[in-house]
Amino acid sequence: MSDLSIEQYSLVSNLFSFVFVCMAATFVFLLLVRGEITTKMRGAIVQSSIVVLVAAYMYWQIGSAWKEAYHLVDGVYKSTGLPFRHVDRYVDWLVTVPLLVTALISILALPPDRSQSLSFRLGGGAALMIALGYPGEVANTIMARVIWGGIASIPFAYILYVLFKELGPAINRQPATAQILVRNTRILLLLTWGFYPIIYLLPIVVEDLTLAPIFVALQIGYGIADILAKCGYGVLIYMIGRAKMEAEAEMARAFKSRTL
Amino acid sequence: MSDLSIEQYSLVSNLFSFVFVCMAATFVFLLLVRGEITTKMRGAIVQSSIVVLVAAYMYWQIGSAWKEAYHLVDGVYKSTGLPFRHVDRYVDWLVTVPLLVTALISILALPPDRSQSLSFRLGGGAALMIALGYPGEVANTIMARVIWGGIASIPFAYILYVLFKELGPAINRQPATAQILVRNTRILLLLTWGFYPIIYLLPIVVEDLTLAPIFVALQIGYGIADILAKCGYGVLIYMIGRAKMEAEAEMARAFKSRTL
Repeated sequence: MSDLSIEQYSLVSNLFSFVFVCMAATFVFLLLVRGEITTKMRGAIVQSSIVVLVAAYMYWQIGSAWKEAYHLVDGVYKSTGLPFRHVDRYVDWLVTVPLLVTALISILALPPDRSQSLSFRLGGGAALMIALGYPGEVANTIMARVIWGGIASIPFAYILYVLFKELGPAINRQPATAQILVRNTRILLLLTWGFYPIIYLLPIVVEDLTLAPIFVALQIGYGIADILAKCGYGVLIYMIGRAKMEAEAEMARAFKSRTL
Repeated sequence: MSDLSIEQYSLVSNLFSFVFVCMAATFVFLLLVRGEITTKMRGAIVQSSIVVLVAAYMYWQIGSAWKEAYHLVDGVYKSTGLPFRHVDRYVDWLVTVPLLVTALISILALPPDRSQSLSFRLGGGAALMIALGYPGEVANTIMARVIWGGIASIPFAYILYVLFKELGPAINRQPATAQILVRNTRILLLLTWGFYPIIYLLPIVVEDLTLAPIFVALQIGYGIADILAKCGYGVLIYMIGRAKMEAEAEMARAFKSRTL
C-alpha cells in the first residue's frame, strides 16, 4: 500500500467515522419510528434497521482495520504491513443486499404468497450475485475478475428485471403518493448498486488501485454509495410506509363522509 | 497447524465475521418482532433469540482466537503457536442445542404439563448428547471418539424418536399452514444436526484434519450449518408463530360471520 499524507489518511478516517455515525443514527431512527408503521408493513422497517446495524458494525471494523494498517513515520502514514482489505466488505453485502430488496417487497404489503415468492427470488438472487462476485474479487487476475463479474451480473440482471418489469402492476396498485416514492427508491437502488460493479471492473483500466489519490477516492466513493444505498434507502422505505398509511386514512375518511 | 495462503486465511476470517453478523442480525430481528407474537408462544421467540445471541458471542470469540492463531510471514499465514481449538464450540452447543428443541415445543403451545414434560425430556436429552460427545472430542484416540460418539448417539436417537413419533399427533392438531412449517423446521433440524456427527467421525477416515484445504472446508461447513441451524431455524420458529396467529384470526372471523 502506498504512503498517505496526514490529510489523506485523516480524510479517510473521518469518512469511516461519518459513515458509522450515519448508519448508527439511521438504526436509532428506524427503531424509534417502527411503532408508527402498521404491523403488515413493519417487517420492512425491521429489515431496513438490520441493514444499517450490520453496516454500522462493518464500518466500525473497517475503522479499526484502517488504524492498524498505517502508522505515522516522519509526517507520512506508512503501511504497518497489516492488511486493509476491500474484500471484507463482502461480509456486510452478503447480509444487507438481500435485505434491501426484501424490504422493498415488504413495504408494498402484497398478498402473503406473492410477497414470499418475490422476496425469495429477489433475496436469493441478491445473495447469489454477491457470492459469485467474491471469487473474482480475491483472484489475482483480470481474467478471473471479468469472468466471475460476468456470471454475477446474471442474477443482477434478473433482480432488475423483477423490480422494473414484474413489479410494475403491483406498484401501480399503490396509493399515488406512495407510487412516486417506490419509483424513487427503485431508481436509488439502481444508481447506487450501479456504482459497485464500476469499481469492481476498475482494475481493468486502472493499473494500480493502491496509488494514494485513487485509493482515497475509492474509499470516499464507497462511503457515499453506502450512505445513499442504506441510510437514504431506509428513510425512503419509512416514508413509503407513512405515505401509504396517510392515503389509507384519507380513503377511510372519504368513505365515511360519503356513507353519512 | 498447517500454513494457510492469504486467500484461505481471509476466507475463514470473513466467514466467521459473516456468521457473527448473521447471528447478531437474527437476534435484533427476533427482538424487534417479539411483540407481534402472542404471550403463549412468545417463549419460543425468547429462546430462539438467546440461541443466536450465544452463537454470536461464540463466533466473536472464535474470530479473536483465529486472529491470534496465525500471523503473516512472507505472504503466508503461519501458526503463532496459540491454539485454535474446535472443542470451544461445545460451550455454545451445551446452551443452544437444548434451547433449539425447547423452542420448537414452545411454539406449538401445547397444554402446560405436556409442554413441560416434552421440554424437559428433549432439552435434557440434547444437553446429555453434547456432554457425552465432549470426552470423545478431547480424547486423542479414535477408539475413545467412537465409544463416546456411540454413547452420545443414544440421546440423539431418543430426540429424533420424540420429535418424529411422539410429537406427530400434536403437530396434526396445528393449523394446516403451521403444520407444513413445523415439519420443515423438524427436517431442517435433522439435516443440520446430521452434519455435526459426520464431522465428529471424520478423523476415522481422514488422517489429518489440520491439512489446509480440509481445515478450511470444515470451518466453512460449520459456518453454513450454524447459520441454517440457528438463524434459519429462528426465522422458521417466528414464521410458525405468525402462521398460527393468522389461522386463529381467520377462524375467529369465520366464526363471527357464521353467528351473525
